[in-house]
Amino acid sequence: MGALDEGHYYLELENGVKRGGCVELSFEEEPEILGIEDAVRVLLRGLGEDIDREGLQKTPLRVAKALREGTRGYKQKVKDIVCGALFPEAGLESGVGHAGGAGGLVIVRDLDLFSYCESCLFPFQVKCHVGYIPSGHQVVGLSKLSRVADIFAKRLQDPQRLANELCTALHHGIKATGVAVVLQCSHIHLPNFESAILDPNHEGWVKILVTSGSGVFEDEKSDTWTDFLSLLRFRDINVDNIHSRGSSDKSWCPSHAFCKTEPANKVMLNAVASILCSLGEDPLRKELIETPVHFVKWLMKFKNTNLDMKLNGFVLNRRDPLTSNGRLDHNEEHFYSELNLSLWSQCEHHLLPFHGVVHIGYYCSNGVNPVGRSLLQSIVHFYGFKLQVQERLTRQIAETVSSFLGGDVMVVVEANHTCMIARGIEKFGSNTATIGVLGRFSTDPVARAKFLQIIPSSSPAQG
Amino acid sequence: MGALDEGHYYLELENGVKRGGCVELSFEEEPEILGIEDAVRVLLRGLGEDIDREGLQKTPLRVAKALREGTRGYKQKVKDIVCGALFPEAGLESGVGHAGGAGGLVIVRDLDLFSYCESCLFPFQVKCHVGYIPSGHQVVGLSKLSRVADIFAKRLQDPQRLANELCTALHHGIKATGVAVVLQCSHIHLPNFESAILDPNHEGWVKILVTSGSGVFEDEKSDTWTDFLSLLRFRDINVDNIHSRGSSDKSWCPSHAFCKTEPANKVMLNAVASILCSLGEDPLRKELIETPVHFVKWLMKFKNTNLDMKLNGFVLNRRDPLTSNGRLDHNEEHFYSELNLSLWSQCEHHLLPFHGVVHIGYYCSNGVNPVGRSLLQSIVHFYGFKLQVQERLTRQIAETVSSFLGGDVMVVVEANHTCMIARGIEKFGSNTATIGVLGRFSTDPVARAKFLQIIPSSSPAQG
Repeated sequence: MGALDEGHYYLELENGVKRGGCVELSFEEEPEILGIEDAVRVLLRGLGEDIDREGLQKTPLRVAKALREGTRGYKQKVKDIVCGALFPEAGLESGVGHAGGAGGLVIVRDLDLFSYCESCLFPFQVKCHVGYIPSGHQVVGLSKLSRVADIFAKRLQDPQRLANELCTALHHGIKATGVAVVLQCSHIHLPNFESAILDPNHEGWVKILVTSGSGVFEDEKSDTWTDFLSLLRFRDINVDNIHSRGSSDKSWCPSHAFCKTEPANKVMLNAVASILCSLGEDPLRKELIETPVHFVKWLMKFKNTNLDMKLNGFVLNRRDPLTSNGRLDHNEEHFYSELNLSLWSQCEHHLLPFHGVVHIGYYCSNGVNPVGRSLLQSIVHFYGFKLQVQERLTRQIAETVSSFLGGDVMVVVEANHTCMIARGIEKFGSNTATIGVLGRFSTDPVARAKFLQIIPSSSPAQG
Repeated sequence: MGALDEGHYYLELENGVKRGGCVELSFEEEPEILGIEDAVRVLLRGLGEDIDREGLQKTPLRVAKALREGTRGYKQKVKDIVCGALFPEAGLESGVGHAGGAGGLVIVRDLDLFSYCESCLFPFQVKCHVGYIPSGHQVVGLSKLSRVADIFAKRLQDPQRLANELCTALHHGIKATGVAVVLQCSHIHLPNFESAILDPNHEGWVKILVTSGSGVFEDEKSDTWTDFLSLLRFRDINVDNIHSRGSSDKSWCPSHAFCKTEPANKVMLNAVASILCSLGEDPLRKELIETPVHFVKWLMKFKNTNLDMKLNGFVLNRRDPLTSNGRLDHNEEHFYSELNLSLWSQCEHHLLPFHGVVHIGYYCSNGVNPVGRSLLQSIVHFYGFKLQVQERLTRQIAETVSSFLGGDVMVVVEANHTCMIARGIEKFGSNTATIGVLGRFSTDPVARAKFLQIIPSSSPAQG
């Protein structure tokens, strides 16, 4: 595993915001940050983007900061966290059994974390549950379990390794009789444009459940494991679907399914390899050898060219019949809606995915034909598969749809942004809604209300 | 409003953990930190605690760090965050309406924050929803809405003021046509020992919904507000229960109900006033004048004396009849359980509340009488109303119950710890379970599994 030099490290200081504060490091001059910035500029050019347009000007710096922040765990030590946070705590004073600082099981559940997939450099989300059995009449401060988990999450990781490293570190750090770790990990699975069109039900997440145990938790069949798992019920954890420890599966990352023969741009591959070096990693480490290929292939899904041609080929011949449940009459005009169209896109400020749903409502007067769901879905994908911001995407969809549907169009986009999680922000539950209103919808609040009312309650697909 | 000196500020550096990292400030030597530590030692002595016992030795430092971290917003500037994060974004190219950077509503929902109540110094939780209508063909980076919200949350606050300050700051900072803020705030309402015993259904939370609007959102009846609220449906937000802006309610904080005449310890009051000064606040600011009284009265609920007498008075005469649904036969013995007993306590490491539920299972052989729910509930309160750690509490309940129920006892405690939220950790959804097993439960996995299975799924009461 790579390790960064000790010493200065990265602060999330975007635009002078001092997180937690202290004297401001000129991290923008650090060679590692400059190196990542250069590499990101290479990647943006490879995507066919103008690196001087305003939305992209600071993207290299933002990406560099997010990656350094997201891998800061290489520089942190478990010892520094746990040392001084072990408290003496008596066990039972009499009787037979286990409780308190001698044998009483302690579980911290539902810790939200994120980590970076070593196979493709995308962040993945982790719901972490940790249990331990104290020994030696001492317990550890509860928050330390979260802090130690974060040290190992903030690295380039694989779920099973993350679980194992956390478990081993805690076992030694808190001198427990045993430590158990359960991680529920979700990795985004971005389709490409063609597969998104052809498979509207594309499953956007790969999920895996991994466990690790030490000491009395070493045996997965032990009664202590059973006790622990009993208290994780109702979290979609089923003992049967736990990924076997040490299973030979190569990787859970969907990038492994990429066609190996399709050539990738050498300059871009080198740029990603140089990013790995700047993070203190060894690009020749066996798990990282394919990472540049995977990352570049993900990124190229959002190349901003040739899509017009694809759109014509895929979509314009697919004016399929109207789905019947979208129609609601209103005066002489008819109101139609298509709800929950899938959205996949890539945030141009951070080169991180955002995904969610698009709802489109429109009026057609008699004589104008409504359109089928698949055409609208294709338009959403057309504008999604680019480097984007949600506000622009919303406007572009609204304008395009109105151009052939007569101008009374309303578009609502609801999306989860990885950039709100996988950086200093860490707002795990947050999501963003944007609205575009054209024609009648911009002047008629009743029409807007009518459409907004039918938007279903479920929040955008979450990992 | 108070303001701290610009310059160095506090870093959450507990035990050498550098959050985000940078050169280590010797914040432990800062006069503000030292002042708060001294004040906390006064408070601990006033509680009758031994400030030299190991669990409390670092409590003054931990409290000082948490308070400085939790009020760091005084030193942050909106301008620094927003400046450089405004991106040019076109409005509609043709047609009538609003979208993109000119008029398209943008909403970021479900931002989890915490703030400190200016009336009692306890943290409260905030679910924050922000909307704005861009003007001037520019939009702001989405994460900046979260960062600006955090600046105002990280101060001593009142919900309505928090909403107003956030709204005004965003309005000017991002030069919007209008900004709307909706905050769902939850303030813990710790009962005292007597009221917890007498009212087992004590509602542990005070909740308030506040809004603020500027520009086109200034009028609460406007159509833009209706659009915004439509996209906040299914979040328990009902227009009817929105707290009227500028309403004359003095404060939502439950501490206002405290008996004003009951005298409080002058030395402790002065200690809290000095903490306010160390945070850069003016203890004579009108909203803060009563704060020392409120804080000291909260704290004194957890004074570790005289409870034995109270327990005898309240409890031991209340051996009420067994609730019938607790009994499950098992061989010749009978298995009983009491689930979801309320728990209120105060973490001795951070002087912050934790609260949740306790489940107790036990076997009685023929001839031993089971006990009523209210006795077990009183025992839970007896051990809860002290400075505690959950592991010790679990053991103490198990030992006490076993002393008169024959030794086959299992106790499970599930609790939410404010110290996992209201500090650098900010793990909003996390919670902690601890187990104590005595007698047969320590050796018989089937008995444990049987009890664990009947523990209900609902997580501990959440704000």
